[in-house]
Amino acid sequence: MVKEIIIIGSGAAGMTAASSARRTDPGAKITVFTEDTDVAYSLCVIPWAIEGKVAWENIVMHTPDYYREKKNIDIMTRTNVDSVDDSSKTVSAAGKTYKYDSLVIATGGKVFIPPIKGTDLRGVFIIRALQDGKNIQSYLKDVRKVAVCGAGVIGLEMALAFSNLGKEVTVIEMFDQVMPRIGEKDMADHIQKYLESKGIKFVLSAPVQSVNGTGKVSSVTAGDKEYPCEMVLFATGIRANTDIPKMLGFDIGQLGGVAVSPSLQPYRKGGLVPNVYVAGDVIQCMSAVATGPTMSQLGSSAVKQGNVAGINAAGGKALYGSIASPWVSVMGEKEIAGTGLSLGLASWYGIEAVWGKASGLTRARYYPGATEMTVKILADAASHKLIGAQIIAGEGATGRINWLTSAIISGITAEDFLARSENAYCPPTSMVKDTVISAVEDLCNKFKAA
Amino acid sequence: MVKEIIIIGSGAAGMTAASSARRTDPGAKITVFTEDTDVAYSLCVIPWAIEGKVAWENIVMHTPDYYREKKNIDIMTRTNVDSVDDSSKTVSAAGKTYKYDSLVIATGGKVFIPPIKGTDLRGVFIIRALQDGKNIQSYLKDVRKVAVCGAGVIGLEMALAFSNLGKEVTVIEMFDQVMPRIGEKDMADHIQKYLESKGIKFVLSAPVQSVNGTGKVSSVTAGDKEYPCEMVLFATGIRANTDIPKMLGFDIGQLGGVAVSPSLQPYRKGGLVPNVYVAGDVIQCMSAVATGPTMSQLGSSAVKQGNVAGINAAGGKALYGSIASPWVSVMGEKEIAGTGLSLGLASWYGIEAVWGKASGLTRARYYPGATEMTVKILADAASHKLIGAQIIAGEGATGRINWLTSAIISGITAEDFLARSENAYCPPTSMVKDTVISAVEDLCNKFKAA
Repeated sequence: MVKEIIIIGSGAAGMTAASSARRTDPGAKITVFTEDTDVAYSLCVIPWAIEGKVAWENIVMHTPDYYREKKNIDIMTRTNVDSVDDSSKTVSAAGKTYKYDSLVIATGGKVFIPPIKGTDLRGVFIIRALQDGKNIQSYLKDVRKVAVCGAGVIGLEMALAFSNLGKEVTVIEMFDQVMPRIGEKDMADHIQKYLESKGIKFVLSAPVQSVNGTGKVSSVTAGDKEYPCEMVLFATGIRANTDIPKMLGFDIGQLGGVAVSPSLQPYRKGGLVPNVYVAGDVIQCMSAVATGPTMSQLGSSAVKQGNVAGINAAGGKALYGSIASPWVSVMGEKEIAGTGLSLGLASWYGIEAVWGKASGLTRARYYPGATEMTVKILADAASHKLIGAQIIAGEGATGRINWLTSAIISGITAEDFLARSENAYCPPTSMVKDTVISAVEDLCNKFKAA
Repeated sequence: MVKEIIIIGSGAAGMTAASSARRTDPGAKITVFTEDTDVAYSLCVIPWAIEGKVAWENIVMHTPDYYREKKNIDIMTRTNVDSVDDSSKTVSAAGKTYKYDSLVIATGGKVFIPPIKGTDLRGVFIIRALQDGKNIQSYLKDVRKVAVCGAGVIGLEMALAFSNLGKEVTVIEMFDQVMPRIGEKDMADHIQKYLESKGIKFVLSAPVQSVNGTGKVSSVTAGDKEYPCEMVLFATGIRANTDIPKMLGFDIGQLGGVAVSPSLQPYRKGGLVPNVYVAGDVIQCMSAVATGPTMSQLGSSAVKQGNVAGINAAGGKALYGSIASPWVSVMGEKEIAGTGLSLGLASWYGIEAVWGKASGLTRARYYPGATEMTVKILADAASHKLIGAQIIAGEGATGRINWLTSAIISGITAEDFLARSENAYCPPTSMVKDTVISAVEDLCNKFKAA
């Protein structure tokens, strides 16, 4: 009998689930429902596409036709799923009912927009699909001043793209630093200064209070001050899109995502739900660093989760473990990356953290093109185990943050890392002692002094 | 009483030992003996200095005067140590005798030159000191054809430097591939092809038989064929410079380096020698991957060893552990890196290895400047533990090889790596699933199929 697999959502998790299900069961009938027009693209690229560094037509890897013809996967675009009934194993969409043997829910996240007035004015944007990016780009043409609400990674990347296009950009953030959730203040301040040097203005400790205008945006009010602008981007955080899971009565975790088993199955009143798998920004994960839940909401995590969900939906066996969630962002000449816990996240888990920090260069001192690199590393004050790290560098942050992620996941202590770790050296790509190791050295010195 | 510390050798190990000894004991009398004229520089940069990418005057970080004035470290340059007596704890140099409480031997390595005729002709060079590089650069001016004997990393980097300066370069290698010791043939062939595309010629499976000429070089003979050239560089491998250790009767290890304890003390007839520490290219290390000895002979290892030797010589406590020896080399637009065991090294330990391989890009598919990345990963066929890796990429190899080194040292299996590893993603610096992970996936598929 042909297995029927339905996937709701066509983001990184949904499309990976579809492809992995196809690899696992070459004969299954696989259908993807999505509200989106395009599939198989990375949202993360939108800032560069808006800026014109990447062509829109290159972003989409495959069309729905490609999936139909080459992978025998049906994709129903612009199709909203109205309801799911997991007792009859059916999905209703666009007036029709579809049966499934296995269901993957990969409905992603929604941009959280604060409940203030004016967010429905023309000129207010969010980014959640490729089309949002195109809409922003075309609206931008007649815009001189932009306000970006939210100084997370996406807000900052977009702010820089706008600034590079010659717009006057003001970033508005309710916390007293940029990247408040995942970045430490000293590291974040460094990025803020860099962006200020590019002409971007920052308004911190100022929650946005209203968007003002008649028909279209003319200003935003934040911290009781008005900032004139013709466009507003809300990059105020992603919340799990749990409409369908809630409709089904699935358990929602403490952080607002669907609680899932290692097989990525949801629970209903504490009992595992059969034949359903959930993946991507909509789920709550388990931290590999602290005993407890975490939200990952990264493209790379969505791909891993989609793979597990797709394999399981097709009758295979795969498990998704706990995660450290390494991330990296490129802002002009700066790369900023992080992994595991920040001081703020550590304190949420009740963990007392000790940190070490070092600055160096990305190449040998005398080698042309060497740029600054700053590494900050956190360890648990009690166990001395590494629990988090952040890097700002002109190049090479990605591989190094993966390196630190591997170390953190292995449960190594700061002292063991210092004793056992080695780094490859060549003048054009590194210092003879990597700054990562110098940062751990600083951390160990703090433990010695304590 | 003031502790007197003598260090023989001013390379990365010797100078790091001096600085670490100073930090450990601010009051010690520290003297470094070296045959070299310059200290505190990295030999690894010489190819780029010869090519003119880096200025000679920038390479030397500090002068002997700096060490004397700022660190209270005496450096006796151009001073050969004639003998050491570790029972009376004295060193004889330049007709004088110096007492020590602790001795660090960091005499480095010697270039192995095959015992053939003609190696004393004018136009024959090796690289072991900064001055060698300067001599080569000045001799090159009247040279059109260069033969490089030895296709290891240094030979290849030098060959490319010569080629970039417009010379006709032939690389002669006795094995049937470039980088025969640390590179796998498929990876090495890729680099060879790249260098051939730059105009470099290769003569493989051809041991060099003679250097020919009257007074100065006019050709080399290899594999019974004669290759006209006006200059020959021998990059035929580094042997531990064990003259002094042998004079003292220290135990020499199976690979030709001084056998040392974790405290970096030598042995004499199996007994630990007090008050003496040995560091750098002269020692034999223990492998962190296979149970057995290994030669590291990397600048980054020398710095770590020098630090341990310096701390211990000054009365502190430090240990040097087992190593995976990650390395990286940059050749034009290519970075090649490795860690742990190659197939050849694995077979030397009697380890049967299984490998996985994947190719991808260093950035998102559509992001400008994306270059190819190929990753090959080895695991022990019996335990499935990762034991080695090699990367060729247009960028980003260094951080990734450190990542894999960390994973290998942690003793993780291929399957566990695949389940637990994560990678940071941003279109300008990575693919959403890093090629490192794809390579391990390929490896796990081979294990599944077996």
